[in-house]
Amino acid sequence: MAIDVQSILSESAKSMKASEIRALLKYANHPEMISFAGGMPSPDTFPIEELKEIMMEVLTTEGRKALQYGTTDGNEVLREELVKRYNKQGLNITKENIIITTASQQAIDLTTRIFINPGDTIMCELPSYLGALQSFTAYRANVVGVKAGESWEEKTRELVEAGKKPKFIYVIPDFQNPAGTTMNLEQRKEILAVAKKYDILVVEDVPYREIRFMGQEYPLLSSMDSERVILFGTFSKTFVPSFRIGWVIAPKEIVEKYNIAKQSADLCTPWFDQAVAAKYMQKGYYETNLKKTIELYRGKRNLMIECFHKYMPEGVTWTEPEGGLFLFVQLPEGYNSRDLFKIAMEKHVAFVVGDVFFCDGKGQNTMRINFSFMSDEKIIEGVKRLADSIRELFKK
Amino acid sequence: MAIDVQSILSESAKSMKASEIRALLKYANHPEMISFAGGMPSPDTFPIEELKEIMMEVLTTEGRKALQYGTTDGNEVLREELVKRYNKQGLNITKENIIITTASQQAIDLTTRIFINPGDTIMCELPSYLGALQSFTAYRANVVGVKAGESWEEKTRELVEAGKKPKFIYVIPDFQNPAGTTMNLEQRKEILAVAKKYDILVVEDVPYREIRFMGQEYPLLSSMDSERVILFGTFSKTFVPSFRIGWVIAPKEIVEKYNIAKQSADLCTPWFDQAVAAKYMQKGYYETNLKKTIELYRGKRNLMIECFHKYMPEGVTWTEPEGGLFLFVQLPEGYNSRDLFKIAMEKHVAFVVGDVFFCDGKGQNTMRINFSFMSDEKIIEGVKRLADSIRELFKK
Repeated sequence: MAIDVQSILSESAKSMKASEIRALLKYANHPEMISFAGGMPSPDTFPIEELKEIMMEVLTTEGRKALQYGTTDGNEVLREELVKRYNKQGLNITKENIIITTASQQAIDLTTRIFINPGDTIMCELPSYLGALQSFTAYRANVVGVKAGESWEEKTRELVEAGKKPKFIYVIPDFQNPAGTTMNLEQRKEILAVAKKYDILVVEDVPYREIRFMGQEYPLLSSMDSERVILFGTFSKTFVPSFRIGWVIAPKEIVEKYNIAKQSADLCTPWFDQAVAAKYMQKGYYETNLKKTIELYRGKRNLMIECFHKYMPEGVTWTEPEGGLFLFVQLPEGYNSRDLFKIAMEKHVAFVVGDVFFCDGKGQNTMRINFSFMSDEKIIEGVKRLADSIRELFKK
Repeated sequence: MAIDVQSILSESAKSMKASEIRALLKYANHPEMISFAGGMPSPDTFPIEELKEIMMEVLTTEGRKALQYGTTDGNEVLREELVKRYNKQGLNITKENIIITTASQQAIDLTTRIFINPGDTIMCELPSYLGALQSFTAYRANVVGVKAGESWEEKTRELVEAGKKPKFIYVIPDFQNPAGTTMNLEQRKEILAVAKKYDILVVEDVPYREIRFMGQEYPLLSSMDSERVILFGTFSKTFVPSFRIGWVIAPKEIVEKYNIAKQSADLCTPWFDQAVAAKYMQKGYYETNLKKTIELYRGKRNLMIECFHKYMPEGVTWTEPEGGLFLFVQLPEGYNSRDLFKIAMEKHVAFVVGDVFFCDGKGQNTMRINFSFMSDEKIIEGVKRLADSIRELFKK
């Protein structure tokens, strides 16, 4: 007789939910499928020739070290390169302010582990990144969302007065996932003022910040307040997702907590990949490839928006983001993107239903559309199929 | 005014302890230091030329896939190779019974996350692997150790009768870390009988199993009970630690839980490294290199034991293990290896104090000595220094 697994699960495991995005990635492999789901970079951006050169070099010159266990805080050269990069953006950090994580999903997970007891409050934007919401849920946090236009000050005060002072505020200030919006300077100042007033940490997750097509760049929150802001960065959108390299930038005292938490989570992030990434940055390849990536995605974004204008039936609205990888799309009130999803599956076009990004269970009429992964031909064909699916939904 | 970090830590973060092994790894970098601490493989075992060949091949033939995000469960080819390997050892599994983890430290962490609420009981050997104890502590488990010779049946019954039924039993049946002992068939049967009688999961962690120098091999616990045993494997000791590739083998229903837990922990294990490992196994390099590794370590083990016989003062005893990477050493009762450690640091020889492996706070007169990492010359010199340090301790 096998064991009754359900009966011995932890409370945390019981509250974990499988990601619907992950489930959708399975469809992305279907030969007929055009997938606007996921947040995958275009394989055209992978610097395969440069990686051949660098991997040979790393194996030849430092193989015995690069294949060995590494330290929990991460490769020093890589951290030094990141220090330079961020200090150019107004930070004033040293490598002791950085810990390399197994991509930014681990940064989210460790942050929640370090600060959250079941029932503790986390504030975030409404909608917000699914992977973060999943992690918050796994630790049984009380997640409170703030809509665009709502007052952070008011919402925070309410929580504090109700004895539910947030442990931290999680935001994606640049090209927010999924909404595509970017906080202006006033909005950044407001978040930091609230954090200071109520003595709350702010986490800024900036996976898309460097993928800007147009418009004005605003300063990093961490450049405006070095004591209260934790930054999550990643190479997954601008270099190679498969290496699983992310980082946390924070005051040293906080980095030390990540160090201890990461020791028991996975000891260290793959060291060979870090050695390769370090050399890639040192050689200036990162910068060159980033420029090419931006140009490629700018074209895809413009093409997708053009197709939306051309094919979408009336009543559908969408963001036209200044950067990032996604359009956020709204159906008229009353329509549910899960109904649309069923139709779209039959027509072999995939997207992410928007309600998964809403911690308040709303957003039924929204969906997230990725434009980085598909070829231009498939973007055109996919938007056509999606528009047809919506028309079919409207008729029902 | 900076935030008061201590005041907002989770209960979990408060109970986390920094690893003393990790702290010791810092000494391993001192130019004069001979380090018997850590559990690092010899860099002489790293198959650098084979990796050059394979990495070029992976980048050329499947670069666009190998550099992309992967699925949470892990590379299919790699899992198929592992299936073949384990089924030869009497398991009867398919790739759905395997999930690739970010080395076995993550396997430990996810297991604890999935099953343990604060206060839940885990049984393990006394002493046991520090990385596991750390993770158990981070989740605030009640860890109960069973000494060699003690009855698992009796201890388990006591716990069950006290309302503290263990969620799982964690064991390292082959070349146990740190004790170096291997469970014989009777002991394996006893553990499984207890697990069956009280309906408890068993976790068998087998990082060293393939590194056998002599003696009889006993069956995997998972080959003796496929419903109740979870196996942790890793490439860290027999291939490349820097890739951070481990795996969990379990009933499908349980693998699904790991899948969900891993999604929010780090989404997926580095995919390029998995693609390389898959090809490395497919080409038969794993088997060839493993044989060379065993021969190398057999020589180091024999050399170290020879030096122990030659140099150690009377009263010191040690295991002479049939496999693995460590000797476990006992000073006469009343001596503390932490006092020895201070003397040894001055003489530039490092080891791991044994008490960190004891969940009951005992083992003060023990220490763990690694023989895989240092060159033969350093093994000889290091044992001399260690013996001198012990003589100095005895005089105090």
